[in-house]
Amino acid sequence: MRRFKCTITYDGSQFSGYQIQPGKRTIQGEIEVALSKLHKGKRIKISASGRTDAGVHAKGQVIHFDSALAISTEKWEIALNSILPDDIAVIRVEKAAPGFHARFDAFGKEYRYFVHLSPKRDPFKRHYAYQFPYPLDYAAMKEALKYLIGTHDFTSFCSAKTEIEDKVRTIEKIDFFQEGDLLVFRFIGNGFLYNMVRILTGTLLEVGSGSRSPDSIPDILEKKDRKFAGKTAPAHGLYLWRVFY
Amino acid sequence: MRRFKCTITYDGSQFSGYQIQPGKRTIQGEIEVALSKLHKGKRIKISASGRTDAGVHAKGQVIHFDSALAISTEKWEIALNSILPDDIAVIRVEKAAPGFHARFDAFGKEYRYFVHLSPKRDPFKRHYAYQFPYPLDYAAMKEALKYLIGTHDFTSFCSAKTEIEDKVRTIEKIDFFQEGDLLVFRFIGNGFLYNMVRILTGTLLEVGSGSRSPDSIPDILEKKDRKFAGKTAPAHGLYLWRVFY
Repeated sequence: MRRFKCTITYDGSQFSGYQIQPGKRTIQGEIEVALSKLHKGKRIKISASGRTDAGVHAKGQVIHFDSALAISTEKWEIALNSILPDDIAVIRVEKAAPGFHARFDAFGKEYRYFVHLSPKRDPFKRHYAYQFPYPLDYAAMKEALKYLIGTHDFTSFCSAKTEIEDKVRTIEKIDFFQEGDLLVFRFIGNGFLYNMVRILTGTLLEVGSGSRSPDSIPDILEKKDRKFAGKTAPAHGLYLWRVFY
Repeated sequence: MRRFKCTITYDGSQFSGYQIQPGKRTIQGEIEVALSKLHKGKRIKISASGRTDAGVHAKGQVIHFDSALAISTEKWEIALNSILPDDIAVIRVEKAAPGFHARFDAFGKEYRYFVHLSPKRDPFKRHYAYQFPYPLDYAAMKEALKYLIGTHDFTSFCSAKTEIEDKVRTIEKIDFFQEGDLLVFRFIGNGFLYNMVRILTGTLLEVGSGSRSPDSIPDILEKKDRKFAGKTAPAHGLYLWRVFY
């Protein structure tokens, strides 16, 4: 038995999220079906760095699995890509230490959130960026970032539906850059709570469009209550960009 | 009754092409349904600059239609965009002269063809660029372009299924540029035959990958027979970019 670390990318548009669910098309489900085909029908369970919700994309999700198949890592990549549906692709397969765990060994993640700055719909961006029609005050947004970066209890920026108790996380970096009519937020941190990047983005857009002030952020953090932060930005603008090991 | 010129964009992935067909989802069908809703159920026929095939995209398709509705061109745009499905959008509505015709008044068109230069599948490009894994000799491709630009009988570069008799067309310009891992071909001409841009692209890629020489092009043109040109590049890399009036 050998353990493999596998970096994958997927267009989340046509999936009911990462996690396997009966009767639904999921990333985990499709990859496990592909692995099962390569193992004469035997179920091979995979573990990911974390789940992604329906509509959320990945440019560098990481999973691991065990297999007794004696094929090279290059052949693993080719074999999986030839079976997987065209909205999931394997970027890289590597041999991992037997104890490697895609989730527990990750010490950080980068997410990106794409905003389409336009009053008009663009059919080519409908699944890939959140259309936002209002002008944004970048200086105010930068001001707000200062309060978010660092180690905080992010209870206010976490879906109330979560079960995790410890909501202290460290955000190493948040920044944003504009590329044509796209505004791209980058979030790097040691871990993100459920919906955290989407709530942070929604709140930053509210600061940028003037509906809340940058210095309201410390208050929101202090309240430790989801209802004080901004709206959850939609899933289809979010990309799990990279996992750090 | 007033005539309107309307510039539209669509992601062709989920359509059975432009032209209305019973039981199929088409661009024309969706737009006529939207117009009918704005006209109390009355059918409003639209005419386009030309058809596009299943999977082919448009960044600047032009249509015209007549309406007695007394609303401003800005309101036309907003009203249509609020009804149309999210893979079609209206870019601009203009009042046109009563005799304006989207097809007969067009004096030229620009098409672009997107090639994804990579041995690896990219889920985000699967509907939007043709994945091509082989290295390309750009100098050879530029050499081949010289024989194609200008006025020629393009019978060899036209689907045999066509009914049009006169296959002489003028190509004003073909060029290409690379942007990251995308190679973009631009074709500007007074008119293009059925599948012509896709066959030109397929042939240029064969020249670029060395499976035919640039100076085979004059021969192909002279043969006036589809079977001498290269393969038809797939639909999903093609964009109707602009129509000139």
